[in-house]
Amino acid sequence: MLEAFLRPKSVAVIGASNTPGKVGHAVMANMVKDGFEGELIPVNPRQQEILGRRCYADLGEYGGKVELAVIAVPTAGVIEAVESAARVGARAAVVITAGFKEIGPEGAALERELVARARRLGVRLVGPNCLGILNTHSRLNASFAHHMPPSGGISVISQSGALCTAIIDLAIGAHIGLSALISVGNKADLNETDFLKALAEDDSTRVIVGYLEDITQGNEFIKAAEAVAAVKPVVLLKVGTTQAGKKAASSHTGSLAGADMAYGAAFRRAGVVRAETYEQLFDIALGLSMQPLPAGRRVAIITNAGGPGIIAADAVENAGLEVARLTEETTAAIRAKLPAAASVQNPIDVLGDADAERYVMAAEAAERDPHVDAIMTILVPVAITPPEEIARALTARLHSPKPVLTVFMGAHDVVAAQRVALEAGLPNYTSPERAAAALRAMCEYGEWKNRPTRVVTRFPVNRRRVERILRRHLRMERLQVGEAAAKDILRAYDFGVPAGSLAASAEQAIEVADRIGFPVAMKIASPDVVHKSDMGGVKLNLASPGQVRDAYDLMMLRITQKLPDARIDGVYIEKMCRRGREVIIGMSRDAQFGPMLMFGLGGIFVEVMKDVTFHLAPITAKEAMQMLKSTRSYALLQGARGEIQVDLEGIASGLQRISQLATDFPEIQELDINPFIVREVGIEPMVADARILLRKRGAE
Amino acid sequence: MLEAFLRPKSVAVIGASNTPGKVGHAVMANMVKDGFEGELIPVNPRQQEILGRRCYADLGEYGGKVELAVIAVPTAGVIEAVESAARVGARAAVVITAGFKEIGPEGAALERELVARARRLGVRLVGPNCLGILNTHSRLNASFAHHMPPSGGISVISQSGALCTAIIDLAIGAHIGLSALISVGNKADLNETDFLKALAEDDSTRVIVGYLEDITQGNEFIKAAEAVAAVKPVVLLKVGTTQAGKKAASSHTGSLAGADMAYGAAFRRAGVVRAETYEQLFDIALGLSMQPLPAGRRVAIITNAGGPGIIAADAVENAGLEVARLTEETTAAIRAKLPAAASVQNPIDVLGDADAERYVMAAEAAERDPHVDAIMTILVPVAITPPEEIARALTARLHSPKPVLTVFMGAHDVVAAQRVALEAGLPNYTSPERAAAALRAMCEYGEWKNRPTRVVTRFPVNRRRVERILRRHLRMERLQVGEAAAKDILRAYDFGVPAGSLAASAEQAIEVADRIGFPVAMKIASPDVVHKSDMGGVKLNLASPGQVRDAYDLMMLRITQKLPDARIDGVYIEKMCRRGREVIIGMSRDAQFGPMLMFGLGGIFVEVMKDVTFHLAPITAKEAMQMLKSTRSYALLQGARGEIQVDLEGIASGLQRISQLATDFPEIQELDINPFIVREVGIEPMVADARILLRKRGAE
Repeated sequence: MLEAFLRPKSVAVIGASNTPGKVGHAVMANMVKDGFEGELIPVNPRQQEILGRRCYADLGEYGGKVELAVIAVPTAGVIEAVESAARVGARAAVVITAGFKEIGPEGAALERELVARARRLGVRLVGPNCLGILNTHSRLNASFAHHMPPSGGISVISQSGALCTAIIDLAIGAHIGLSALISVGNKADLNETDFLKALAEDDSTRVIVGYLEDITQGNEFIKAAEAVAAVKPVVLLKVGTTQAGKKAASSHTGSLAGADMAYGAAFRRAGVVRAETYEQLFDIALGLSMQPLPAGRRVAIITNAGGPGIIAADAVENAGLEVARLTEETTAAIRAKLPAAASVQNPIDVLGDADAERYVMAAEAAERDPHVDAIMTILVPVAITPPEEIARALTARLHSPKPVLTVFMGAHDVVAAQRVALEAGLPNYTSPERAAAALRAMCEYGEWKNRPTRVVTRFPVNRRRVERILRRHLRMERLQVGEAAAKDILRAYDFGVPAGSLAASAEQAIEVADRIGFPVAMKIASPDVVHKSDMGGVKLNLASPGQVRDAYDLMMLRITQKLPDARIDGVYIEKMCRRGREVIIGMSRDAQFGPMLMFGLGGIFVEVMKDVTFHLAPITAKEAMQMLKSTRSYALLQGARGEIQVDLEGIASGLQRISQLATDFPEIQELDINPFIVREVGIEPMVADARILLRKRGAE
Repeated sequence: MLEAFLRPKSVAVIGASNTPGKVGHAVMANMVKDGFEGELIPVNPRQQEILGRRCYADLGEYGGKVELAVIAVPTAGVIEAVESAARVGARAAVVITAGFKEIGPEGAALERELVARARRLGVRLVGPNCLGILNTHSRLNASFAHHMPPSGGISVISQSGALCTAIIDLAIGAHIGLSALISVGNKADLNETDFLKALAEDDSTRVIVGYLEDITQGNEFIKAAEAVAAVKPVVLLKVGTTQAGKKAASSHTGSLAGADMAYGAAFRRAGVVRAETYEQLFDIALGLSMQPLPAGRRVAIITNAGGPGIIAADAVENAGLEVARLTEETTAAIRAKLPAAASVQNPIDVLGDADAERYVMAAEAAERDPHVDAIMTILVPVAITPPEEIARALTARLHSPKPVLTVFMGAHDVVAAQRVALEAGLPNYTSPERAAAALRAMCEYGEWKNRPTRVVTRFPVNRRRVERILRRHLRMERLQVGEAAAKDILRAYDFGVPAGSLAASAEQAIEVADRIGFPVAMKIASPDVVHKSDMGGVKLNLASPGQVRDAYDLMMLRITQKLPDARIDGVYIEKMCRRGREVIIGMSRDAQFGPMLMFGLGGIFVEVMKDVTFHLAPITAKEAMQMLKSTRSYALLQGARGEIQVDLEGIASGLQRISQLATDFPEIQELDINPFIVREVGIEPMVADARILLRKRGAE
């Protein structure tokens, strides 16, 4: 679809210039210097010729069809430039010019006008306010970047144009082969999601790397990313994740960054590999673009020195991988070919005087070993054999179905070897730690690719009942759904809820208590009291009619003292829950990614230890169980320290039913079951307290 | 003291050779090529001349005094070589030759003989099995490394000779200036502690960097490191920290790596900066060797592009630093000198067309701002101004009392700028994240340097009583001190212990219970029952004589069923403790660093959440309080979630008294108070259960 941006046959540079230092000159110079092979049409009313090409005063003068227009005219002339491009058949334009949304309301208005006009003309836009587009394979450098990077399999989508220049500079100096590089700028029309899809279909792109400050349509992006990740890896650096970063991002782009936790959950779901740092972005992309995915986490380390081998073993374990336990066949085979002083255990120490032959022998042995999933070769420049000879031997003789990562450590004698490795398709890292981190990401992506088919269970529920309750609340503009109604809703979705009922007087309360049986709990029912306990609005373990009456009178007194204006619906009387393990399950609807489910152990675990996990709805049974397992306190649920093992399936089922509820009713903004009381297997978990917050219809 | 190793006036190369590829040739060639200015005396009976220098068949032939002997003869000739060096006055020898401890028992025996002979001759040794020693300032390259690194302020002590070659290679390519580089090899005589002390006194060394697999005398090392760190920074990469790494380390060096937690505690105490990765080692050392320490954690970020500014803001916050809030004076001053589109908040965006002037202006404004403690300047190569011009301007015009770190991002157009910065004394990093991590380490070191004087409180205790109890146990070879005796010991160190006494029969138990008052607890007293509860050896809340009798009879029955051979001293009857918050305090004696104190909240917090902290004894009141604060669950002790605030001082005082006890009695191997029951301020915490393990005298 976006072929015209990546492989145009003819490119018009509107605003081309003969003046070095001007963007319009830089773009032209790049197109010429980097050898663009299609038609190149400079447009500038004040020039006859630019860099040896005939320059047109108006694009109309050019007889042929233009596929891509690159616009570098002053802000005021951009719309006209798009119109002129449309007239000669262009359906694609890269607007490099700045002065739009990023400068304030006036610029934003102009940007809206630009997009509206382009839509009417059927022209798709990249930018405005961007660096441009490069494609090493079609020799397209429609940007004002200083250089064309080396060619390779990594394509980049970047929300920062300036960062693209650092990426190109890194690619040149570190021999990282790039495919396309797209600076999306203000994303007025086309955004990351569009290019994600386009690059998925681009055969030259093996890995898609993205630098993102915000994501325009979270849900769309995640859907697209999940589809793309099934075909090729997507590695993202999402910035603005901290408070400080968010502030920096919002002053920069005028956009509010989505919550970091939601991004984490969304990326996990979609199989997007998340880089923690700028360096990791390309460390990971290198491995993924050049090597097969590991089938497991067991790593063989081959080194010509003990120290770096230890560093590597630490790094592998710290990254959550395993130092492979080699088979006896492997150690025997290696031992037979190495001097006595060599270590034939993993890390395999081929010794300081190792030549290419020894490295290849050890790598081949590791490749044959069924206990090995990935190979890391390390070299420090003690060798007598030139490192590049070893690099060449490794690249020439290895066509391993297992990933091989090299670590030529240093920055001088090993530079040639690093280049040989990288240019031949062996990813090189400057330290074992960086190689291990890349390998871990490769493992995680491989695990995601091999995940079982997701089957979301639909539970039989009473959806109409919930509809009625929600409609009533929204009609009365009561967005806080009180405990009684919240529990009705949960009951309709098959949650265990203690018997209970509203009561409007002490007498009614006693009547209810008598019916459901003592002991009971009494809780204030008021749309204006959110934190019931803090207001004296909760009494537990009332064992007799007298206690119910006392509690009722005292509660009314306290509430009227503390919140004289509160509307009071009465009290909610319910059967006391039996004690058990308290957990919290809930949902909060993220503006970008929709309902996000939450799980944590009750009380201190959530509030003090921050031991919670999140997952996007809809959720499968397996994913719900995975949420439980990824808390630190999971062992407690399993029965650590003599605790009973609680009904894990019961919690997982609760999460799935919240997932279904949140998917069924977009008007539910937040939902908390706190506590959800779980006991041993076979006993139904109970909703001890619940709270639901709605949003107005149309707020979706 | 080790002057002869770092700045010898005359160096004999024993085993010098004319054959390229031989170590004895490499050392000679290095000494000549790298311009050693002192006397250079090659020794080899089969050569007349080596590299233009007269070669001596025997060192005796050489008339003068030799200060340093570098020995590269075959293993069997090493001792003789040391003897010949001693005869011409050498008191220092670097033994490069391998074939000693690292090859097995035979080699270890030879190594012991070598050390014994050297000691008698008054010769100190580096090695054997090492790369050698380099000193860029005295142009000494007494090693077989391929190159001499550039000169600078970072000295390196490395337990891996091969890693030194990677370090030198990195230093050359990344323009990192090194001072001395010492490969300690097998550490038969001199070790890391000796060179730590020597480099502390070496004026050319501004930062000491160490790569260590094990530490020979932990306690000595930490004492020395603490003294050295007061003078100059010590940055260490301690490897073998994981199970896999430890295994790799032990097969490599034949030495057992100390527990990683103990290293962590020891380094924290001593002010040693711990690098997490190989790259961090030099990232941190660069900053420390070139820039002043920050007075606080507030960082100003100056960038010519928004994206990298956001990456930097995230990185600063993730590193535990703060993005400085600039004063209005600063923002006004910057605004006056920047185009309207520039962001004058922090990160300060000087825009893509920024020249050197703008960077210097912003840096000077940040330098004057009292809210700024450190400055990070970032440049991506969009600039029209060549990056090296900006680097030159920053280095020429900044003599800031605040640290300045630069991030010239890229690997091609910015390489010249990176080099200009590094050579002039501005540490450069290739990503904001790496700069932030280095800055954090600089902050932590600065905070350690400014820590208040450590005053260890001595509590008045009954030391003689403890002596008697321990003597009795050791005489009987009872290393497990039972609950009753352990509580006696703790009582003598002024711990609150519930009233209680041993009883040998049901009648005696009832008598004791009557005396101290019901309810009581009953616990089996037996040196053979360690986990009392598991064996049915604990009964709580016995409220009457009848319950005491029943409990006694049942307990005896159970124990004889489960452990028929257990020696039983009777039961320990004690007053039930009132409930409160349960914490665990304890001590375990590390083989290297001595008593290590432990603190954690009881039960699940320690066992499931692994929320524990460690600190080396002796401990100050402030450090003990710091231990409490560094647990995640600290908020609970402070009274989060409606819990009472417990007596924090009481816990801290308990830790200090354990510290004193462990220091007073080296025969105590382990001590656990679990639980230590703490309640509100003013109520004495109580030892509910305690366990002490002794070690045999002489095992120290």
